[in-house]
Amino acid sequence: MLRGRTLWMATGNPHKHREARIILMEYGLDLRRLETKRIEIQADDLEEIAAYSVEHIPEADSRPIVVEDAGLFIHHLKGFPGPYSSYVLKTIGLGGILKLMEGVQNREATFKSVVALRWRGETHLFVGEVQGRIATEIRGSQGFGYDPIFIPDEGDGRTFGEMTIREKNTLSHRARAFRRLALWLTSR
Amino acid sequence: MLRGRTLWMATGNPHKHREARIILMEYGLDLRRLETKRIEIQADDLEEIAAYSVEHIPEADSRPIVVEDAGLFIHHLKGFPGPYSSYVLKTIGLGGILKLMEGVQNREATFKSVVALRWRGETHLFVGEVQGRIATEIRGSQGFGYDPIFIPDEGDGRTFGEMTIREKNTLSHRARAFRRLALWLTSR
Repeated sequence: MLRGRTLWMATGNPHKHREARIILMEYGLDLRRLETKRIEIQADDLEEIAAYSVEHIPEADSRPIVVEDAGLFIHHLKGFPGPYSSYVLKTIGLGGILKLMEGVQNREATFKSVVALRWRGETHLFVGEVQGRIATEIRGSQGFGYDPIFIPDEGDGRTFGEMTIREKNTLSHRARAFRRLALWLTSR
Repeated sequence: MLRGRTLWMATGNPHKHREARIILMEYGLDLRRLETKRIEIQADDLEEIAAYSVEHIPEADSRPIVVEDAGLFIHHLKGFPGPYSSYVLKTIGLGGILKLMEGVQNREATFKSVVALRWRGETHLFVGEVQGRIATEIRGSQGFGYDPIFIPDEGDGRTFGEMTIREKNTLSHRARAFRRLALWLTSR
């Protein structure tokens, strides 16, 4: 088990840290935030990006560190914006995505999260996914990123942006990946 | 001067290599293609991406190597697709860009190229830019990438896709960056 049941998450995004911390608390784990420079490579799969990132954080030599990389993969758009979700949000934004999806019948999308843990010189990956569809308008102001346009299939028709953090945590991609991490850590 | 007047370009894109080789030939330089794995980081500026990339190519320890990173920055879209131009092309494609630009008056765009040279343990950057606008339809089948929708301001109204490689080389961002590299190398 982890000494002190503590691990660090290297992220510049406080929303991500908050969602993940709430999950890990359920398993008696304490997820602290580490402010450090992360290198993100360009790659089509999140696994490669997350692994490279955590393996290039100097602090990972001395303590357990996690990095999370997430992306929204819209099927009709061949996976766009995928690994570049945050850049796309910052430039064309939700409005750009809705414009690209205007008149498109197939609105299926996958939200995916990959958590990379670096611990004792080894990297372990944990993946979570949620299927859903792209809304035709922006709905809700909770969450962050693409939450206001993503409607999970297993939900009640609301977007992630219309859910509280605890509701979102019952079915989100990020929650699933962090639960897998927690189960793995607590079963050792 | 370079021994044998030879340098290597690490790229998976034969079009880029061909355009650059023709330019450098004018200066008596021989640009060969090196097939190697390149690491591309996610960053908003091409300079950072190109420098990191060339500094992480093992072969750069023993011979002069260049890496080029280019992107199309559409002003109305806050610079999108920018550093992620090849991923965007592969997913939403030229059709996606035209859809995002539907009804948009401001069609200004900048094509930018950064060449990073690694030589004798140092990195040198050479930048080339060309201003233009986004066409309202795909025109021409020459060149590659965004060439069929980019109309340079200094041209005659044709897109890069409607120009021969030699015509494009008189005013392209890539040609400008490589000419700067050539002048620097041949003036030493």
